[in-house]
Amino acid sequence: MNLIDGKAVAERINEETRQKVERLTQHGITPGLAVVLVGDDPASMAYVRNKDRTSQQLGFFSRKIELPKETSQFDLLEIVRGLNSDARIHGILVQSPPPPHIDEKEIVFAIDPAKDVDGLHPVNVGKLAMGDPTALVSCTPLGCQRLLVENGIETSGAHVVIVGRSMLVGKPLGLLLLRKGKGGDATVTLAHSRSRNLADITRAADILVAAIGKAEFVRAEHVKEGVVVIDVGINRVEDPLKPKGYRIVGDVAFEEVAPKAKAISPVPGGVGPMTVAMLMANTVTACQIQTGYFV
Amino acid sequence: MNLIDGKAVAERINEETRQKVERLTQHGITPGLAVVLVGDDPASMAYVRNKDRTSQQLGFFSRKIELPKETSQFDLLEIVRGLNSDARIHGILVQSPPPPHIDEKEIVFAIDPAKDVDGLHPVNVGKLAMGDPTALVSCTPLGCQRLLVENGIETSGAHVVIVGRSMLVGKPLGLLLLRKGKGGDATVTLAHSRSRNLADITRAADILVAAIGKAEFVRAEHVKEGVVVIDVGINRVEDPLKPKGYRIVGDVAFEEVAPKAKAISPVPGGVGPMTVAMLMANTVTACQIQTGYFV
Repeated sequence: MNLIDGKAVAERINEETRQKVERLTQHGITPGLAVVLVGDDPASMAYVRNKDRTSQQLGFFSRKIELPKETSQFDLLEIVRGLNSDARIHGILVQSPPPPHIDEKEIVFAIDPAKDVDGLHPVNVGKLAMGDPTALVSCTPLGCQRLLVENGIETSGAHVVIVGRSMLVGKPLGLLLLRKGKGGDATVTLAHSRSRNLADITRAADILVAAIGKAEFVRAEHVKEGVVVIDVGINRVEDPLKPKGYRIVGDVAFEEVAPKAKAISPVPGGVGPMTVAMLMANTVTACQIQTGYFV
Repeated sequence: MNLIDGKAVAERINEETRQKVERLTQHGITPGLAVVLVGDDPASMAYVRNKDRTSQQLGFFSRKIELPKETSQFDLLEIVRGLNSDARIHGILVQSPPPPHIDEKEIVFAIDPAKDVDGLHPVNVGKLAMGDPTALVSCTPLGCQRLLVENGIETSGAHVVIVGRSMLVGKPLGLLLLRKGKGGDATVTLAHSRSRNLADITRAADILVAAIGKAEFVRAEHVKEGVVVIDVGINRVEDPLKPKGYRIVGDVAFEEVAPKAKAISPVPGGVGPMTVAMLMANTVTACQIQTGYFV
């Protein structure tokens, strides 16, 4: 069994990104990322801090915009529109989830698709489905695909079963793996909570992606011998032995699935680190598309 | 074995559409459809004639715009933009394929997404993926889904295998069947020419959709007993016994697959008639969304 080390791959990608940012800066163009946070949710604050810190480390022009949780829809839209027309900014991310009074969809639709480094605007989702090379693709699915490619796992002709049909992971990942070319050309099955005979379906997988959001849902009986497993889940389970009173587990029961797997990504240390790395890579891509400089 | 009669369903849907057009017209709003044809390809001319005739029969305001095959990209874009701002027109369709000097993608991207009754603009594809109710969805996949619903075939929890990953059928149909609610909630597999062990994959299907564009490709060994089959293929095969020297067959070898099937759509008379009916229904939907009148 091979452990798919997301941290190592993410570091390699970040180093590539740092070099691209350096070369662009030498040409007078510094890629700029704006991360907008509304409210003070501790998990969101930690994510935003991490993104801001990484983008600074890699040489980006970084703006962190922290807004009080009472910020109105109107004011948030104004800020997004301001960033749309700010020439220093090539990527805009509004940290999800916003407070409940905010209509998140309207915010996402207001972001200039060319700056939508989260890949959530319908234009980008549509372009992804069409295989358009200017699509900005959602970071987590992009990270999953890259993990496979960087670990030498062939997707062409392989049967990939994705459990979970969300817009953040399942659907865009399916569309990515269906594209022609490297990291694509897979047979793709999207299964979910409504699927009948789920274990039969997942046992057909050469590559299984778990993105259901249920702690240790995928058990040994769900996989065949020699499967490759990508675990997208991040779930808290109570654990009085841990200092914080909980530990983080994935959607896969690692201990029992790993022995049957040819390769498996752990949680933490698998898909997680890839997400921020792909956000940084997307921001460089967005900058290159917007400016026409490909270095 | 039940024959899935697309002609009968299409007639029922057209009658519903005719009634909606009549009610809208009584409110002073006549849904308008513009069909643009560039060049004189005989098949395209027949399709356009059919769409124009049907829309007139159902009471639409219908514009058929026939342009010489030398029409420039620039002039075609001007015509599309004119139709975008023509208040009488709620749906615009540019017949595919245009002559080779035309960049079809740029033309599709230029159509106002709200008037894109062919559902090909990335905004509509993206909204489809997101499950947005204002998505205009491509007519052929919409027709396939409707055929299942109207024939009482439950998709929820069922395993649908679609062979073919095109943007005209495979991918949008997969996204449709993954949506929540009636006609959705399916487990969806997209297979294609690169898929390994294709017969194993198709034999797992409760519902098999063939959209590969290869005459009689799906044989008895590809399906399990009791499968439901939707055949999207339209292929010409030589037949000296026919007056035109050819006959039309689907992607499914009907004679050998039908005996194993619980239900199957024939070619012709299955999906084909549904496509134009869904175009008409889409034009009413587009008109209702644009005007805010839902009658």
